[in-house]
Amino acid sequence: MLEAFFRPSSVAVIGASRDPEKLGYTVLANLKEGGFSGDLYPINPKAKEILGLRAYPTILDVPEPVDLAVIVIPYPFVPAVLEQCGQKGVSAAVVISAGFREAGREGLEREEELVEVARRYGIRLIGPNCLGVIDTDTPLNATFAAGMPPGGPIAFMSQSGALGTAVLDLAMAGRIGFSRFVSLGNKADVNEVDLLEAWEDDPGSRVILIYVEGLPDGQRFMEVARRVTRKKPVVAVKSGVTRAGSRAVSSHTGSLAGSEVAYQAAFRQAGVVRAESMEHLFDYARAFAYQPLPAGNRVAIVTNAGGPGILATDALERAGLELARLRLQTIEALTADLPDAASAANPVDVLGDALADRYEHGLRLVLADPGVDAAIVIVTPQAMTQIEETAHVVGRIAQKSEKPVLGCFMGEARIEAGIHLLRGYGVPSYPFPERAATALAAMVAYQKERARPIHQPDRFEVDTEAVRRVMDQARGEGRVSIGDAEARAILEAYGFPVPPSHLAATPEEAVEAAERMGYPVVLKLASPDILHKTDVGGVKLDLRSPDDVRDGFDLIVYRASRYVPGARVWGCLVQKMVPGGREVLIGMSRDPQFGPLVAFGLGGIYVEALKDVVFRVAPFSRQEAEEMVREIRAYPLLEGVRGEPPADHEAMVEALCRVSQLVTDFPEIVEVDINPLMVFEEGRGAMALDMRLVLTA
Amino acid sequence: MLEAFFRPSSVAVIGASRDPEKLGYTVLANLKEGGFSGDLYPINPKAKEILGLRAYPTILDVPEPVDLAVIVIPYPFVPAVLEQCGQKGVSAAVVISAGFREAGREGLEREEELVEVARRYGIRLIGPNCLGVIDTDTPLNATFAAGMPPGGPIAFMSQSGALGTAVLDLAMAGRIGFSRFVSLGNKADVNEVDLLEAWEDDPGSRVILIYVEGLPDGQRFMEVARRVTRKKPVVAVKSGVTRAGSRAVSSHTGSLAGSEVAYQAAFRQAGVVRAESMEHLFDYARAFAYQPLPAGNRVAIVTNAGGPGILATDALERAGLELARLRLQTIEALTADLPDAASAANPVDVLGDALADRYEHGLRLVLADPGVDAAIVIVTPQAMTQIEETAHVVGRIAQKSEKPVLGCFMGEARIEAGIHLLRGYGVPSYPFPERAATALAAMVAYQKERARPIHQPDRFEVDTEAVRRVMDQARGEGRVSIGDAEARAILEAYGFPVPPSHLAATPEEAVEAAERMGYPVVLKLASPDILHKTDVGGVKLDLRSPDDVRDGFDLIVYRASRYVPGARVWGCLVQKMVPGGREVLIGMSRDPQFGPLVAFGLGGIYVEALKDVVFRVAPFSRQEAEEMVREIRAYPLLEGVRGEPPADHEAMVEALCRVSQLVTDFPEIVEVDINPLMVFEEGRGAMALDMRLVLTA
Repeated sequence: MLEAFFRPSSVAVIGASRDPEKLGYTVLANLKEGGFSGDLYPINPKAKEILGLRAYPTILDVPEPVDLAVIVIPYPFVPAVLEQCGQKGVSAAVVISAGFREAGREGLEREEELVEVARRYGIRLIGPNCLGVIDTDTPLNATFAAGMPPGGPIAFMSQSGALGTAVLDLAMAGRIGFSRFVSLGNKADVNEVDLLEAWEDDPGSRVILIYVEGLPDGQRFMEVARRVTRKKPVVAVKSGVTRAGSRAVSSHTGSLAGSEVAYQAAFRQAGVVRAESMEHLFDYARAFAYQPLPAGNRVAIVTNAGGPGILATDALERAGLELARLRLQTIEALTADLPDAASAANPVDVLGDALADRYEHGLRLVLADPGVDAAIVIVTPQAMTQIEETAHVVGRIAQKSEKPVLGCFMGEARIEAGIHLLRGYGVPSYPFPERAATALAAMVAYQKERARPIHQPDRFEVDTEAVRRVMDQARGEGRVSIGDAEARAILEAYGFPVPPSHLAATPEEAVEAAERMGYPVVLKLASPDILHKTDVGGVKLDLRSPDDVRDGFDLIVYRASRYVPGARVWGCLVQKMVPGGREVLIGMSRDPQFGPLVAFGLGGIYVEALKDVVFRVAPFSRQEAEEMVREIRAYPLLEGVRGEPPADHEAMVEALCRVSQLVTDFPEIVEVDINPLMVFEEGRGAMALDMRLVLTA
Repeated sequence: MLEAFFRPSSVAVIGASRDPEKLGYTVLANLKEGGFSGDLYPINPKAKEILGLRAYPTILDVPEPVDLAVIVIPYPFVPAVLEQCGQKGVSAAVVISAGFREAGREGLEREEELVEVARRYGIRLIGPNCLGVIDTDTPLNATFAAGMPPGGPIAFMSQSGALGTAVLDLAMAGRIGFSRFVSLGNKADVNEVDLLEAWEDDPGSRVILIYVEGLPDGQRFMEVARRVTRKKPVVAVKSGVTRAGSRAVSSHTGSLAGSEVAYQAAFRQAGVVRAESMEHLFDYARAFAYQPLPAGNRVAIVTNAGGPGILATDALERAGLELARLRLQTIEALTADLPDAASAANPVDVLGDALADRYEHGLRLVLADPGVDAAIVIVTPQAMTQIEETAHVVGRIAQKSEKPVLGCFMGEARIEAGIHLLRGYGVPSYPFPERAATALAAMVAYQKERARPIHQPDRFEVDTEAVRRVMDQARGEGRVSIGDAEARAILEAYGFPVPPSHLAATPEEAVEAAERMGYPVVLKLASPDILHKTDVGGVKLDLRSPDDVRDGFDLIVYRASRYVPGARVWGCLVQKMVPGGREVLIGMSRDPQFGPLVAFGLGGIYVEALKDVVFRVAPFSRQEAEEMVREIRAYPLLEGVRGEPPADHEAMVEALCRVSQLVTDFPEIVEVDINPLMVFEEGRGAMALDMRLVLTA
């Protein structure tokens, strides 16, 4: 897929120029100097020859077939030229030219025209308004960047071309090597999801990096990423997270939502490693690209400096990793090999006067310990330190090890030589222990995620027809907000336990219902025009006699008519009063990029005041629902504090899964708010006491 | 103070050697090559001359006075040589030799001997077991490091010498410049606090950096740091934070405490900027050292790349800074100067083809805007970017600006030239926007902290005699745990409101007391041998009649004797039942380094299950107590949710201040646990309902 972009046999540069100041010159020069070995055709109506290559007036004049066209002409001419590409049978085009969507309405129309042409001819298109495409293996440098970056197993895609230039400049200094590099530009056609699929089986790309500002189709991204991340790590930086705004998840969780939480949930559910900054992105990339994954989180540290050893220990624990407990055998062997003052416990301190041989002993021994999953080697440039010899020793051992080894050669002037040597062995070195620890933590998290089986969402037997009926009824009456009486019918159809209830039109009917279900009962105003019942005094709890029910009914109906004159009042919902339990909330709103975003939290103050809510994109599996429940900060309250029995975990998980199915089955539901779901003690289930839905207008 | 270490007129190197493999050679060579212009005396009994300098057999043979002795001889001879230094009238000695405290018990004794000699002669001593001392202004390089680092306004002290070598290696690569550099080693005499005081008024040191593993005297450190941080920023990295262990703050907050929270509180109270990693330490240092402090937190971004501009915006918001709103005048001027496609709103996007002139316009205009407190300039190396010209432009404008300007020149190969030029102008550049934003946030936080007036702790009128009497009584009976009946006397003496209560020995006495104070009442077991009363059924709430009281009394006393046979039972405490309120907890435990560490949190689950507690080192001011109250995550619950009135803020603050005074006045109190302090509605105060103290054994 999309191979014509990366391994074309022939490339035409439309807009190739002889003027070194022009991008059309740079692109052609990059292709030529980058070592592209296929056929290269400069297209320029005014030139016979450019950079020693025969030029053609149009692509149609090229006598041989052309796989890839790189277009660097002024925007007004791009659609026509793409048309010619189509006629020529070109299968892939990189449009570097700017002046499209990013330039306002006219530009947008021009871009739409471009897409139309591309679709018509079956041309796949990268750009417009981009820096271009690089494949270091082919090799192919179809960009106007300043030269060809070194090769390596890292594939990088960026929505921002400018960021791309900075990344390539880092690479040019030898900091990182790329297999493929794509500047996506306006993403008129090819986007992040296409590239993920294209790189899924590319053997040269061991890790995929994404700088993303926005994704076109969140659900498809998740589906593809879920698959790709099983094969290789995908690390992403998402920008624009704090501007995400505060769109509501439900009337209660409103202030908490926004697409940042959707990205966070989606990346996690899809197994995408999220980097908090560009620095982390490359830190992680170097670890993933060159080192094997750790089997667990137990880390050994070998150091010639106590202080940095402690810093590394702190960083490990902060990152959720464990300082490995070395087994006795290892400690004894270390003790035998190291001087008396050295520390044979982890962190293994080989002392300031350590030569390379002590690192060799130390590192070999800790890696051989079955209780060690990974090692960090810290070297400070002390008076006797053999920086280069130590790098060779560490590199050689790491190359033979199945466990990851990360370096932390600290300093710059003297130590740089060692860092450079390490790189040759595929051992990334980090300037400070904290960064090595964070990179290792990313590897551990990915490995753990990948080791989990992929779970399918549960499918429950439900009554979709009943839901459809309620929705049609409401819509028929011009309503999109569905309150208690109707919402409970929908939830019941989806298998939610709800307390016995009856919609009573008169006080006497209410009393009859109460007698039937047994006291105490609750009365709730039933009106399609009044959704927030408590605000108008529309709820009466714990009614214990016929008189209580009669009085309550009249009071509620009277108040409703007084507070909302003209409101339709159907009567009152009589509901069996349920015993106390822990109140949780399940909500859902539609994220513009990822769709149904389900929220879970403890009800009341925990959500409103303490913002203790977690989110997942539906549909999700039972395991993901489990994680949601355990992830809220207030989870200990669900487990039970001070001798309380635990709340029914299974009941919460099942309720979440049923909501996931409901909002997946009915895309027209744009909001769900079950609040509270009353959760009883373990084994006693849960009940939805109050609920509200909103449909698309 | 300690000036002899940094500006000596003459230096003797005891153990100077002609063998380039020896540290004694390196130290002498560093002094000489480092440009020390005073008198330099190699001391070596076997040499006549070293490195062209006349050598003396002992320091006593030197004909002129010696200010500073640098000792690099094997450890057995150090005490005798220091004795000679004393006889010679040396005022400062750097002991580089190892083999002291770090080498076990004998070493410790040797170190104590060293200190004894130093005290006897009034010699101040750095080390032993250290890398040495550098002053780039003098210049003086009394270390065995690999050369002299570049000068600069940053003073650095490190407990770890090895870390020091890494730091110097970074400096040697031109990344950072130091005024003074001290490796503290074992800190037998001179420690962090001494250096803070010594550098307080050093005009060459604009910022002080500390790498600290442990502090000798936390309270003195806080006192000095509080003063020094008013004059210049002090930035510290504390290592070993996660190993801190889990010493208890009180029986309830036990799992939360540990000295990490003490360091966190102490640094903050003393105005010390805490860096989370060595990388942050230097990132902050470069900003503080070379740029003016921002007056506020409103930041403008000027960039030639949209993506990095967004990343910077995210980072600003995450760091608690604000993207400045440019005033209309600025936007209009920007619009006039920049091309149409540029963004004149903040972040100001000067576009990918920007030459240096656009940066000049953009940066000048945003800095002139009164709504801007600081600027970050992002440069990506695009095709037309004038990296060096732009660096000059940014540097020149920054030099004339009273607002801080931080650079973010992204990349390495091409961009490095610009970063180097920026450095010449004193504009630090960060490789990624996130790091620039974090550094700026540190500046803003420091500036805000420094601008606050220093508040003195309140002093309340209290009855210390009454406290002393209760404590003497308990101690007289061999008790160090002081429970409810006695603890309430102590709290009352310190002005805490407690509910009316009476210690009743018999049921009838209890009834009389209840009648006097009015029902309902609470009964609590009074026994010096049973502190956790609820565990033995020793508390009865809401007793509303004489019969209730009689039954309760007998039941409690019966149960106490059954569960804890042989326990002394004084009877029951009859306490007026107080109306409901919000329950908070105030605790105190003694931190080994900082002393009284006071804890505050909402009672019950919030502390136990949700670990929502804040800490401060006592004594603290009213303002600091205010911050404690506002800092807990559950603060919204104290403000009142869902129409609840706010809890009495002043009452909590005052209770905290009174505890601060109590534990400061009585160092023999090692634990306090007031739980709950029942806080009523605003204006209605608070009452300590249950309390417990522990005295030193």
